[in-house]
Order: sequence, then structure tokens, then C-alpha cells
Amino acid sequence: MAAIREKEEKLKELKLKQKEELATLEAELNQLKLNSKDAHKIALKTPKGTRDFSPKQMAIRKVLFRTIEKCFERHGAETISTPLFELKEVLTGKYGEDSKLIYDLSDQGGELCSLRYDLTVPFARYLAMNKIQKIKRYHIAPVYRRDNPSITRGRYREFFQCDYDVAGYDSRIADAECIRIVSEILSAVDVGSFIIKINNRKILDGMFEISGVPTEKFREISSAVDKLDKMSWEEVRKEMTDEKGLDGKVADSIGDFVKLKGGLDLISHLEGVVKETGNNSLLVGVNEMRAIIELCHEYNVTDKILFDLSLARGLDYYTGVIYEAVLTDDKVGVGSVAGGGRYDNLVGMFHPKGKQIPCVGVSIGIERLFSILEAKAKGNVRTTATDVYVASAQKGLSKHRIALCSNLWDAGIGAETAYSENPKLLNQLQHCEVNDIPLVIIIGESELQQGIVKIRDTNSREEVDVSRENMIETINKKLNQKRG
Amino acid sequence: MAAIREKEEKLKELKLKQKEELATLEAELNQLKLNSKDAHKIALKTPKGTRDFSPKQMAIRKVLFRTIEKCFERHGAETISTPLFELKEVLTGKYGEDSKLIYDLSDQGGELCSLRYDLTVPFARYLAMNKIQKIKRYHIAPVYRRDNPSITRGRYREFFQCDYDVAGYDSRIADAECIRIVSEILSAVDVGSFIIKINNRKILDGMFEISGVPTEKFREISSAVDKLDKMSWEEVRKEMTDEKGLDGKVADSIGDFVKLKGGLDLISHLEGVVKETGNNSLLVGVNEMRAIIELCHEYNVTDKILFDLSLARGLDYYTGVIYEAVLTDDKVGVGSVAGGGRYDNLVGMFHPKGKQIPCVGVSIGIERLFSILEAKAKGNVRTTATDVYVASAQKGLSKHRIALCSNLWDAGIGAETAYSENPKLLNQLQHCEVNDIPLVIIIGESELQQGIVKIRDTNSREEVDVSRENMIETINKKLNQKRG
Repeated sequence: MAAIREKEEKLKELKLKQKEELATLEAELNQLKLNSKDAHKIALKTPKGTRDFSPKQMAIRKVLFRTIEKCFERHGAETISTPLFELKEVLTGKYGEDSKLIYDLSDQGGELCSLRYDLTVPFARYLAMNKIQKIKRYHIAPVYRRDNPSITRGRYREFFQCDYDVAGYDSRIADAECIRIVSEILSAVDVGSFIIKINNRKILDGMFEISGVPTEKFREISSAVDKLDKMSWEEVRKEMTDEKGLDGKVADSIGDFVKLKGGLDLISHLEGVVKETGNNSLLVGVNEMRAIIELCHEYNVTDKILFDLSLARGLDYYTGVIYEAVLTDDKVGVGSVAGGGRYDNLVGMFHPKGKQIPCVGVSIGIERLFSILEAKAKGNVRTTATDVYVASAQKGLSKHRIALCSNLWDAGIGAETAYSENPKLLNQLQHCEVNDIPLVIIIGESELQQGIVKIRDTNSREEVDVSRENMIETINKKLNQKRG
Repeated sequence: MAAIREKEEKLKELKLKQKEELATLEAELNQLKLNSKDAHKIALKTPKGTRDFSPKQMAIRKVLFRTIEKCFERHGAETISTPLFELKEVLTGKYGEDSKLIYDLSDQGGELCSLRYDLTVPFARYLAMNKIQKIKRYHIAPVYRRDNPSITRGRYREFFQCDYDVAGYDSRIADAECIRIVSEILSAVDVGSFIIKINNRKILDGMFEISGVPTEKFREISSAVDKLDKMSWEEVRKEMTDEKGLDGKVADSIGDFVKLKGGLDLISHLEGVVKETGNNSLLVGVNEMRAIIELCHEYNVTDKILFDLSLARGLDYYTGVIYEAVLTDDKVGVGSVAGGGRYDNLVGMFHPKGKQIPCVGVSIGIERLFSILEAKAKGNVRTTATDVYVASAQKGLSKHRIALCSNLWDAGIGAETAYSENPKLLNQLQHCEVNDIPLVIIIGESELQQGIVKIRDTNSREEVDVSRENMIETINKKLNQKRG
């Protein structure tokens, strides 16, 4: 302990010294820059791998988020929120070699923090910290990875995840429900047909045992299998033998397994392999998958799933069923649009006594779905919720326009009027057509004298005169008709 | 330029060297720690000044966010989104001495970035970058300040802002609409009565000119005036004379002004001062405030405003009207719950040619409203949207339960069933009572044989038998009745 404290003291000193060195040099540089003529040029861009979303994009995203949220709510999930950054040590040792992609906050004195890399590890920390045994929760929020952005394939450094997780149940009913959720969401958003690949870490382990992979190589061979969606078997085999030193025969045995795809027929085949080999991991995995595939029938998603032995998933923490959804009409090559699995050992990494909480969950890849929906939208997206525009036919009526807006807002109706004192009627009507505002109230001196307003339908251009008392009622009727 | 490049090269080298030194020492320290027995202790907490939100808290927050969003939508605003962090230089020089509170990301190679400090500067950057002349937008998102957290007063390092801004109009109609928006929101959330203080930077400047404050001291004297909501005039006067070197007579003249509060009566009084002094800044400011106060009548918020010459607001960038809403029943002392103003010169700081875009906006202090609503809620908050729980009276019916849930989900009805194979009926019914799930479907062997389900009302405990064909219709009817 004394040695640690001594070393920590040294580290503190070094950091202080470095800070001073840096500050001196930076100050000199800043002074030079200030004296140069480029002083006030600011790069007008967002940081690498991040982006703004325009009102049109946000309108599409809002519908997408709401669709996903409604599905999670329909399945009885609650929602929680965790901070954007965590203590650095919370994230340490959870993501294997991907840890290098974690964004750290600068050391400004105080705790060392990192931006969250996913929503699963903060969820596990939340469960352990609050001693929660059982919860079904969803969480829709951005996560951060210092990856090489690939804009065409919808990969960014800041992106949203939509996670649904059930903690506290080692249950196939919960496992299969995740498949149903992915299916409900992908059916509800207009992105064409899809297939949800499923497999099980226990089956992968059994298959590696049977093939003769040394235990310490399971994870790296699993990583190699995971590349089969992008590489041919020959390439993956080469990686296994040449790079990872696997025996050729062992690789070929894996090759025979990972070709297998199917449904209950594949279960029966694997049950035969269990009988031949007596492999226990395979036995447990196959039993789980039989239960899950049978439950998929009740969940009405049998035609949406494919039991695929080549599915491996990158993350270390999965322990049972794993999922990955891909779009089958996909021409852009956005890759998987949802993924997840069972992770029964993650929460225990936070418990002081290592208490485990079985968990299963799925994450929807919102950015990829968004890029497809955005490409489809082609401009005809409404970005506001204005129901009524209050226009005037003559000058100097701004106070009357505002009073009418206030009446409409009081009645919960979305209303706008021009910010200028004397807008032209034609401009006001044009604004309504461009922005798809369904109704226009028009007032002029004559309407004011008679105590009426003119209500104009933007689409049909029909106009009716209505008394001020009946205005709200008439507008609500017309709006309800339009909403069908 | 050569000198800059040389210095930049040196800085790069220094950073590399420092990184290596640090890495060596850290590796040594980590090794020591790994060898000690404390290796796996992780601090189970969120970073200082941040917090998790539980399902109950999130249920309250969701209603609050939705209320605010609906108000913004009702006024015809679009929404945009900007990244969580900006290039460091975008934030530089916008927040005066508060810049020290900005969170920087660690230099991991590549660009230097900082977490956003508010939503206004990113909005100005967005406008300049996309050459947008006119927009009415809202933005609800978290911002980050390395302030000293004060949990009791609802001040955190991570907190949400709900911003509404109108860009492109130098318009009193837009200025007064911000007051209406604050009034709508504070009336809609149950936080008691409130008052919206208003003032104008031009009036403050005029008052300083008339009192004889040297121009270069305007901002610091303005900061002193800003403290009048927490300090007495005597203390503020002392700061002005002793710390800021203001002449006592000048301070007393300011003191005469900042006592003034009122409505149109105060406007008339100030119009008198304009006549006496011929001060142009005061003249323009008073004319603006007369227009705004008169428009407040049409906006139906006259009883919600107080024209208060002691209101100054901290931020440098305001140029015209400023607002600040406070709760008048507030016993916790949460301070202001909304604030904003006109800032006509901010966007120009980003334009290469300094092109200005007039802007006005208001920001709702959601965390303070939330802490009040949370204290009021006292536990009776529903956290899920489940309409129907599917229960079984006998063992081994899980597949039937799931099939029924699937029917309900297909019909858009929120449904849940137990994750265990053989739940006890009493436990299932209890779950519904605890979680306020309004309806229960109960099935047993006899119901399955007859092709019916039992529908139970959790509140009244009434049960009716319904055929499977009529199940969805009956449930929808019952749910509609309950929703009133």
C-alpha cells in the first residue's frame, strides 16, 4: 500500500509539472496566434463523426423514436436515465480491445470520467448501485465511440441507442420477447423486410469444445466467426489457422458447424450431435434454443427468425442467446439494425460481493434505420405542428392577430402569426401553403366590425365566415375532420 | 506564420513526450494495484454533480418535458439537434469568466472539443454554418457546467435546458411571445404562482450613462446589479464603490433607478427621464418596453409581468429585452425557473463576415421545476403503460399467455405476462394492484376449453367472461371508459 501511495504521489507531481509545461507553451502559441491576422477565424463545423440534425431530420427522428418508445411501453417497460459520463473505472475492462475507442474527459481536477460507450454497462452499474433485483427498463440516449466514422454506412461517433433490457429473470419467455420486440419495431418502421438471426454462446462454446479449440482461444476464435457476415469462410479459416494458430482440422470442424442454418430441423440435428458427443455446453444451449424457437411460434415471429450457427456477436459479456437483425432488402449495406443477447455475469462485476443478476436485452440501431427513412422521405415532411395561421388583410392589425392567437393557444390549438407589423396577405397565405398549415384565420376591418373571422382551408381554398364565439368549436371540428 | 508552425510543432512534441511519461508511470501504478487485494473495488457512484433518474423520476420528467414540448409546438416551433460537444474554439470567448466551468474532452489525438455549456451558442453556430436567416426552433437537451453542485437548490453539473428561440426578426411581437410561452408553461405545470420580471439592456445602459458610469465599467456594474436578488442594495453599493471603484454619487444614482418597478406607469416615468436627459439608449429601450408591455395585454399575460429595473442577467450577449421568471410561492429558494432575452450580436461572432441575425429566446429551468414536482409527487406515480396483464390460474399455460399477449400487442394494447413458467395467481393479481394495471385477463383449463377469457377489473375486482373473438373489442371499450 505504501508503494502504491508513493507512486500515486509521483503521478500527481508529474501531472502538475506537465500541466505547467503545457500551459507555458500554449500561452506562447496563443499569443503568437492573437498577433497574427487569423485570430478570429472559427472553423464552422461540428466535431469529426458528429452532426447537427435539421428540423426535417428531427421530424423523421421524432416519429422513429416515438415508434420505438411505444413498443417498449407496450411491453410494460419503465425508463431510467443515467449521466452522459461515468467514472472512468466503471467502463474499464468491459469492452475488450474496443476500450481504445472510449472518449475520456480532460483531467481538470477531481474525478476521471469517460463518456458512456453503450447503455448496458451504465445499466449494470445502476442495478448494482441501487441493489435492484428485477426491472424491465428501456433507455433511449446517445453513446460515444471514437471510431473511424463511415458516414455512408450510417456510422458516427455520436449515435443513439434504443435499449430494452429485462433484469432478474433467467427466462426463455424473456429471451424470446426480445425477438418479438425487434420484429414489432422493424415491422412498424417502413424499412422493408428483415430477418432476425439467433444463436447461443453456449452452442458456440460447445461447438468449439467438440472441434477441439483450446479453451483460452474461445473468444478470439469467436471473434473470427463473427466476421463471417463480411468475409468468406476461406478468409476466416485463414485467419484462424495462420493468425490464430488453429489446427487445420479443428478449423474445418468449425467450418462444418457454422454452415448450419435453420429452425427446429437444426435443433433436431444438433440434438443428434449432443447424443454423439455428450457435450454438456451444447446440450444446455440446444435446450435453450428449442424453448426459444418454440416460444417464437406463440410470439408470432416464426417467419422472422433464422437460427444461424455463424452468428457470434463481438461483445465479451454475452452468456446465452444472441440476436442480430438484418434488412433483407438492404442495398445500402447498413449491416445489422438491431442486436443483443443474454448477459448473466455483467452486473456481478459491479457488486462488491459479485452477486449476479441474469439479464437479457436488445438494442435498436436507430441511426441506420434513420438513414434509410431519411433517404425515402424526399422532402415532404412537416416540421411544425401549427394548426392555424392568423393572417390579416389590412395593415396595423397585429394586436388583433395576437389576441386571436392567444384564444387559440388557450384552447390548446397550435397557432402562429407573422412577426412583422404589416405582413402582406399573399405572403401569409403562401407561408401556409409552403408549411402545410391546414387552416388560416383571416381578419380585416370588416370582419372586426362584424365580430366574425374568415376561416380558410389551405388545401381547398374554401372560406367560411364564423362568429368569434363559434370560432374555436368550428376550428376543432375542421381539424378533427382533417385528422380523419 | 513560420513561428506559429514551429511553436505548434514543439507543442505536439511536448504532448507526445508527456503522454509517454504518463503512460509509463500509470502502467507501473496499475501493476502495483493489480497485485494488491483492492484490485476489483469499483466506486459505485455517478460522477460529482450528476445523477441517475429512477423510473418514478423519469415518469414525472416525461410529463414535464412533454408539457414544455407541446407549448413550443403550439407556437409553431421546429426542433433541431446539435452534438453534445463542440470544437473548443466555438465556445471560447462566449461566457466571460464562466468559461472556467466548461468541460473539456481529453486530447486523444485529433480535434480539441468541449461539452456544450448551453444551447444558445451551438444554435448560433448552427445558424451561421447553415446560413439560416430565419427560424423558430426549440431544443430540449442536457448541458454541462463544472460548477459547485448544490443538490438542495436543484443545481447539478449535468442538467437539461428547454430552449425556444426566434432568429431573424427584430420584432417586439417575438419578444413578447417569449413571455407568453413562459407563462403558458409555468401555468401548465403545478408549481404555484409566478412572476416574470422584464427589463432591457438598453435601459440599463441608458441608466448607467445618465448616472455617469464610465463605458468600460458597464458590464461589471451590470454584474453587480444582477446580484440584487440575493444581496441588499447596501452590499451591492459597497461592491460598486469599494471593489469596482465607482464614485459614491454615481452609485446612488443607480440606486435610485434600480428601486423602480411597475408597468406602464413606470414607462411613463422613464419617458419623463428621457425628456429631461435626452439619453438615446434609454429612449430606444423605453420605446421597446412600451411596445412589449402593451403587447402583453393581447398575449393575456399582463398580470404575470413585472417591469423591474434591477433585473440585469449575467450573460454578456444580451442586447435588448431580458426576462427572468421566479416562483412567488417558492419556499425551497430554487431561484429563477426561466430566463432569456434578445441577443442580436451573437450569430455574427460566427459569420466569417460578421453578418448579424437578430435573435430572441427563452430557456426553461427544467431541473428546478422537476425538483418541486418530485417533492409533491409522493410516490403515487405510474411508471409503466401496461393496460392488461395476462394471468393464468393453472400451471403450464405460459404459451397460451404469450399468444394472448401477442394478440393484444398486435392490437396496440400494452400487455404483460409473468416471465416464470408457473406463476401463482395471487402473485399475478397482486402485481396488477401494486403497479396500477387496470385490467387482467385470466385463463385456466376451463376458459381454454370454452374459448373464452375472464376479464378482471383491478379496481372493482369485477370479472366478466368474454369470447376470444370479442376480447380486443371489450378491452378497448373498458380502457376507453377508464380513460374517461
